[in-house]
Amino acid sequence: MNVLWLFAHPEPRSLGGSLRDRGIKALTGAGHSCRESDLYAMNWKPTVDREDFVPGPGGPETSYDECRPEERLIVGTDARRAYRDGTLSPDIRAEHEKLAWADTLVVQFPLWWYGMPAILKGWFDRVFVKGFAYGVRDPDHPGRTLRYGEGLLADKRALTVMTSGSPGPALGPRGVNGQLDQVLFPLLHGTLWYTGMTVLPPVAVYGADRLSDRQFADAADELCERVLAIPHTPPIAYRTQNGGDYDAELVLRPDHRPGETGIGVHITD
Amino acid sequence: MNVLWLFAHPEPRSLGGSLRDRGIKALTGAGHSCRESDLYAMNWKPTVDREDFVPGPGGPETSYDECRPEERLIVGTDARRAYRDGTLSPDIRAEHEKLAWADTLVVQFPLWWYGMPAILKGWFDRVFVKGFAYGVRDPDHPGRTLRYGEGLLADKRALTVMTSGSPGPALGPRGVNGQLDQVLFPLLHGTLWYTGMTVLPPVAVYGADRLSDRQFADAADELCERVLAIPHTPPIAYRTQNGGDYDAELVLRPDHRPGETGIGVHITD
Repeated sequence: MNVLWLFAHPEPRSLGGSLRDRGIKALTGAGHSCRESDLYAMNWKPTVDREDFVPGPGGPETSYDECRPEERLIVGTDARRAYRDGTLSPDIRAEHEKLAWADTLVVQFPLWWYGMPAILKGWFDRVFVKGFAYGVRDPDHPGRTLRYGEGLLADKRALTVMTSGSPGPALGPRGVNGQLDQVLFPLLHGTLWYTGMTVLPPVAVYGADRLSDRQFADAADELCERVLAIPHTPPIAYRTQNGGDYDAELVLRPDHRPGETGIGVHITD
Repeated sequence: MNVLWLFAHPEPRSLGGSLRDRGIKALTGAGHSCRESDLYAMNWKPTVDREDFVPGPGGPETSYDECRPEERLIVGTDARRAYRDGTLSPDIRAEHEKLAWADTLVVQFPLWWYGMPAILKGWFDRVFVKGFAYGVRDPDHPGRTLRYGEGLLADKRALTVMTSGSPGPALGPRGVNGQLDQVLFPLLHGTLWYTGMTVLPPVAVYGADRLSDRQFADAADELCERVLAIPHTPPIAYRTQNGGDYDAELVLRPDHRPGETGIGVHITD
């Protein structure tokens, strides 16, 4: 595998940092290639703004405001043009280069407010630009774009690794914090699957702020097993946009999960 | 009402910016007080890091690294201490002051990758610190903290205003993008309700990148109605943590929604 490991924790000496070290060591020890985007170490800029899209003719040395001070910023449109013209901010282009190299993406983070830390959300906001990760016309379905199982990133597998202080049952199917894979639906389905990636069930480490040494060892062992098993782990069986399960308005047809509503219906029966 | 309007869009001349202007005008025109945190205009820092927590004795002029270069950053613990000691970063303390003033929070954003833009996620990551928004001991339930309907922010009502390019049906109960209130569960339930706020059904503007003038006028009118109706709008009926619906492990008791799983079960029957 060629693995890009995305990591978002402000403290490298954290439980998350130790797990990351173990996971990468397991991969390289087994002969896989691994590159990392350690977002805090990179001082990653999380905020989408005009500086991301530097249009011509001034080129990369000219800021957006200098070029077009009077024009409204339209994020999708400006991002797509900058992507096409090669004028995206260099830090975004560097991540595109890593993604082009990778066949596997690991996304590791502590669960903050039931989502990704802002620095990691901002990686997706800035790197997954229109024309690259979404908004690519589907040649076979006029009026649609390639997404949900199809897209320019469809050659990749994605594994999410999440640490949380919550005990497992509270993030379980009926736990007060919400069923984990549904809490992570915006990432697993709305981002990774949206862009075409094959999405594996997440690795979850619960009670992460109070693991014993023995519990840490077990969690690290499980993580190593899971990352080495990426090529043959059955993915989450999300429905494809164009496989026939949805109608023309992209609503699930009534013969699938009849009478049911909610995000759980988007996994195949 | 004393309304704090959180707004996260990189372009003030956007549809979102126009809606924000209309909503605030409706509120002030009806005699309500309104303050705003326009995160892009404030150049809000989204990333939680050591600089947020400036411990003594050096005080606010001394950076975290200068004070304790050898110590691990433990976000919850360091944040709670800084909150207690009044040494949180001034930009965070300014938001706490606004929240103390407000009885109502409006959270307005464009839906990016099925969640908040990073700059807004980073407002919650940095402002909702331990000891303030979570991690406050529950005097009546040893071993628990005040959350899910209880907490220091329980005197506030919260309304989310979301714009999306998606057509409505695709974010509907069986739409391919996921049922909106479940896609927003990490914010509505895992953040706003977690901290005790009363959470209203979101205002959603669909097809936001292609509204006609007439459609914009309708959306603005609906927004104005909704913000003026905040005091008497029925909230989402999320279950309280301590109301008896959950067992000792905080799993929903089997007599509620028997046999059902997923985040939908956390709304009362």
